Amino acid sequence: MARVSQEHLDARRRQILDGAARCFARNGFHATSMQDVFKETGLSAGAVYRYFSGKEALVAAIAEEAFAGIRASFEEASRATPPPTPDVLLGGVLRLLLEERIPGADRNAFARLIIQVWTETLRDERLAATLALGYNGMRAAWSDLVEAYRKNGLLHADVPADHVARTLIAVAQGFIAQQALFGDVSAEILENGLRGVMSMGVQSPS
Amino acid sequence: MARVSQEHLDARRRQILDGAARCFARNGFHATSMQDVFKETGLSAGAVYRYFSGKEALVAAIAEEAFAGIRASFEEASRATPPPTPDVLLGGVLRLLLEERIPGADRNAFARLIIQVWTETLRDERLAATLALGYNGMRAAWSDLVEAYRKNGLLHADVPADHVARTLIAVAQGFIAQQALFGDVSAEILENGLRGVMSMGVQSPS
Repeated sequence: MARVSQEHLDARRRQILDGAARCFARNGFHATSMQDVFKETGLSAGAVYRYFSGKEALVAAIAEEAFAGIRASFEEASRATPPPTPDVLLGGVLRLLLEERIPGADRNAFARLIIQVWTETLRDERLAATLALGYNGMRAAWSDLVEAYRKNGLLHADVPADHVARTLIAVAQGFIAQQALFGDVSAEILENGLRGVMSMGVQSPS
Repeated sequence: MARVSQEHLDARRRQILDGAARCFARNGFHATSMQDVFKETGLSAGAVYRYFSGKEALVAAIAEEAFAGIRASFEEASRATPPPTPDVLLGGVLRLLLEERIPGADRNAFARLIIQVWTETLRDERLAATLALGYNGMRAAWSDLVEAYRKNGLLHADVPADHVARTLIAVAQGFIAQQALFGDVSAEILENGLRGVMSMGVQSPS
């Protein structure tokens, strides 16, 4: 067997993930077969199975990559002091997500892929665990940031940081759903909208 | 043929929709067959097809009912003067959604059903049109309400009402996704979280 470089292995893995993502985004997870993935990537069954044991492994790898990308962008943005406000930070994350391209697929294929992953977790416990792990990481990072807002005098209501964190994550999830369903989301809409909500300045009545 | 009362027809229709919703929530839309629906409802194919032409018609009817319920609760809440703030209003809508029960199904079956409907719109244009119609109605109603906030001195940032409307809808959609994925959402989390965001009081820099 010929020696293969790590670079070659990585490129091959990339090629398979991109091809699978195109198939899933186009036809849905359930309607996609491994045969479709072989055809889309132009690779043999043996070549694909060398990297991934099946559709579930492919979608789990795609979900893990997406989370890693979001986390990196979030961590980079939140390293600043004082931390950027939620409209700026979340706008940046959404901008990244909307720009995330599956090579060869249309603009909102990635958003469509994400909502399919959500649906798929209802039937796939391993994928559900992957998502829960990624979500809990985001939630903890956002909670830290909300505490930083509080310390910097930016958060006035006396509410649990975790609830604010979950609400901000919900905003991102909701816009991903809107992009998948209607295809007309821009980061500017989220930035303006969140700035509007933030300006409503209602204090905690308790 | 025996005469049947409207009441009987309505009850039968209800029975079919509830049975189908249980099947979809449990096994997913794609894995559910019309045979499963016959079995779940205890009705014959003829009895079911008298009301619905197939799975697509069932899921469209379920989606339309959900939108009607959300719209009614929203309209009731927004009739007050001054209008309730977004945390109160959206908390009420989410409370209603979380309490929405599919008879015989578990607590978060309804949320799971919603994200499956989202995914299904990617392959079903009629369903996508139903959802777009319901969403546009919500968006217009929220935009009117945001303008009312502005008139009442509650909204300080100079941003398009539609962007605020879409952001608030995104919060609800995001929490539905979190409930479907993790099953641990409560309206209180949204109310606290949104109150926290509203308290961040950042003015538009422009």
